[in-house]
Amino acid sequence: MADTAGDSCQNLREESARAVDNAKQLQDSAAAFISRSGTEEQSLRQRALAAESTIRKLRSSLDASVRRGTVDVGVAEKIEEELCKAGSIITDGDVASFLPSIDHGTFLKMFLGPINVRATRKDVQLKVKEEYNRYRDNTSFLFLIFPSALLLLRSWLWNGCFPVLAVQLYQAWLLFLYTSLALRENILRVNGSDIRPWWIYHHYCAMLMALVSLTWEIKGEPNCAHKQKGVQLFLAWAMMQGVAMLLQNRYQRQRLYTRIALGKAKRMDVVWGETAGVEGQLWLLYPILFILQGFEAYIGLSLLKTALVGVVSEWQVIVCGILLVVMAAGNFINTVETLMSKSRFKAKMKRSKSKQELDQGLPPCNSRLK
Amino acid sequence: MADTAGDSCQNLREESARAVDNAKQLQDSAAAFISRSGTEEQSLRQRALAAESTIRKLRSSLDASVRRGTVDVGVAEKIEEELCKAGSIITDGDVASFLPSIDHGTFLKMFLGPINVRATRKDVQLKVKEEYNRYRDNTSFLFLIFPSALLLLRSWLWNGCFPVLAVQLYQAWLLFLYTSLALRENILRVNGSDIRPWWIYHHYCAMLMALVSLTWEIKGEPNCAHKQKGVQLFLAWAMMQGVAMLLQNRYQRQRLYTRIALGKAKRMDVVWGETAGVEGQLWLLYPILFILQGFEAYIGLSLLKTALVGVVSEWQVIVCGILLVVMAAGNFINTVETLMSKSRFKAKMKRSKSKQELDQGLPPCNSRLK
Repeated sequence: MADTAGDSCQNLREESARAVDNAKQLQDSAAAFISRSGTEEQSLRQRALAAESTIRKLRSSLDASVRRGTVDVGVAEKIEEELCKAGSIITDGDVASFLPSIDHGTFLKMFLGPINVRATRKDVQLKVKEEYNRYRDNTSFLFLIFPSALLLLRSWLWNGCFPVLAVQLYQAWLLFLYTSLALRENILRVNGSDIRPWWIYHHYCAMLMALVSLTWEIKGEPNCAHKQKGVQLFLAWAMMQGVAMLLQNRYQRQRLYTRIALGKAKRMDVVWGETAGVEGQLWLLYPILFILQGFEAYIGLSLLKTALVGVVSEWQVIVCGILLVVMAAGNFINTVETLMSKSRFKAKMKRSKSKQELDQGLPPCNSRLK
Repeated sequence: MADTAGDSCQNLREESARAVDNAKQLQDSAAAFISRSGTEEQSLRQRALAAESTIRKLRSSLDASVRRGTVDVGVAEKIEEELCKAGSIITDGDVASFLPSIDHGTFLKMFLGPINVRATRKDVQLKVKEEYNRYRDNTSFLFLIFPSALLLLRSWLWNGCFPVLAVQLYQAWLLFLYTSLALRENILRVNGSDIRPWWIYHHYCAMLMALVSLTWEIKGEPNCAHKQKGVQLFLAWAMMQGVAMLLQNRYQRQRLYTRIALGKAKRMDVVWGETAGVEGQLWLLYPILFILQGFEAYIGLSLLKTALVGVVSEWQVIVCGILLVVMAAGNFINTVETLMSKSRFKAKMKRSKSKQELDQGLPPCNSRLK
């Protein structure tokens, strides 16, 4: 018995010693791998930066040559296309993850500190974008249901007066929603999404409005119709916003799926499918967007009017009014700009189609290299 | 002249072709590097997991042997120390970055989506922690100054009544602060910090309280003393909290610096310096923490009293009262637990010092492997 005990003890001792040796070896391999891959990454980063700057230089000398008239326009276009191709190989391919990260921005730093949120692998980046779209999709249903429920219950149950708590819960949800959207969009930007800066600023404004509206007194059994007029208008607008978000999401999702599908077939041609197959929906989406923007501005202006006429004199009314007008104007300008860049892109495609074959599917230049 | 133009055109063409070739080569190298390092990472991950599970198994069989009495206690302690060493080589060294990431948790996923926030390199993780401490340091000054200013201005300028906007700005700042602290602490946890879960839950409660207090009406020229009694108490507590945070930060910072310094000298011995040199401050810190917790519970209870007696009947008063009592109780329990584990650790150190030499400075076991 004592012998077996001694044996098992000896065994345990030996196995523990082996475990320590194994752990040390593992530590050495890990340290070696980390330092080796660090060096390789560094060299890839330098090569990528050098390649980027060469392409930029060639481009500007091509521009200069065209302006001096020393290069035939047809030839120049062909060279330009070659350079575009080289540029998008670098910025859209695996090399992109070795280029230095875009600045994370004050907003992310304020909330998260200096942590890196860039995914290195391209497929992970696409997954992040897909998840963001799914999130927007889910929230747009809530965006539709929440205000509809409030408005319906108001006339069925609440005798024309919103209970304060229900509205405040909705406003708190809005504050959370806009904060998380702003964070996620900043993360997308860091991961190379070409999201327009305005849409992020827009969510900052919306966050501020949700915060301000939380402090807004809407109590008022005596004369709630007057005090809650603004809330009522806002909820009606939110319902419409829900519908617009659903449509927008459907459109953007189809665009992403096309990109992923094309990206898998031939990674560099991702930008081509952008407007294919969803043309019909755009004719529905844009009018709705413009109507929404008009309605948003109308609510903002009527809030300002009630404040100036003196029915409700709280500062929250003025701030919310101004914010709504600013958001409506910004949304309008950015929607028009998006439309214009889309039609410029289509015109360019048509022109190049008539000039030359498009068998190769050459992508337009990536914005990073412009 | 036409010849030079032709030359320069030819040059541009050649250089562009070279740029395209270069970009393609770079893309190939990048893709090869990514796939190669992915394979290596995978193999390191499997080795690390296997090593972890071997150590865990050896430990439980050691425990069983000790219970059966087949191993001498002195020998068992020695083997246990060996196993601890092996474990901490894996969880504290470079290998740790290959172990699967801890679940990011609902809170981070809700705000950020599925993005990975774990830094792979140990020095980056320490930098994140240092930055977090700096952030806490800066905010603790504001934590002291903001409520002091409000309380002073109240008696000097505002004739004993807080203006609503000033208090609401303070509450909005609190909401932002607690949200960012909760996010940063969750990120620290993912990066392997052993932060107690309670401190994160505590910040969720504080977020909720800041949100609720934003909707709390504190207007009241007619009888503001009554309505604003709760606010006044809360601000007094916040001032004390600022002092406690400053002290806590000083203590934790010194601890981290000791860890980094020791970590550089000998990475695995990081846990040793924990209580060295800051013993004196602890005797000041803990009484202050206990007084604060008592005061927090007192404010919570007096808020509940005012609500139950019927002076102020808003639901916000009741919710804030309950949250304050819950936070005070949780803080108290966790402070006591921290104190107890510290004294257990010291007792263990003393015992082992009397038994054997501590030349090697063997670290106690890492929690991950317990």
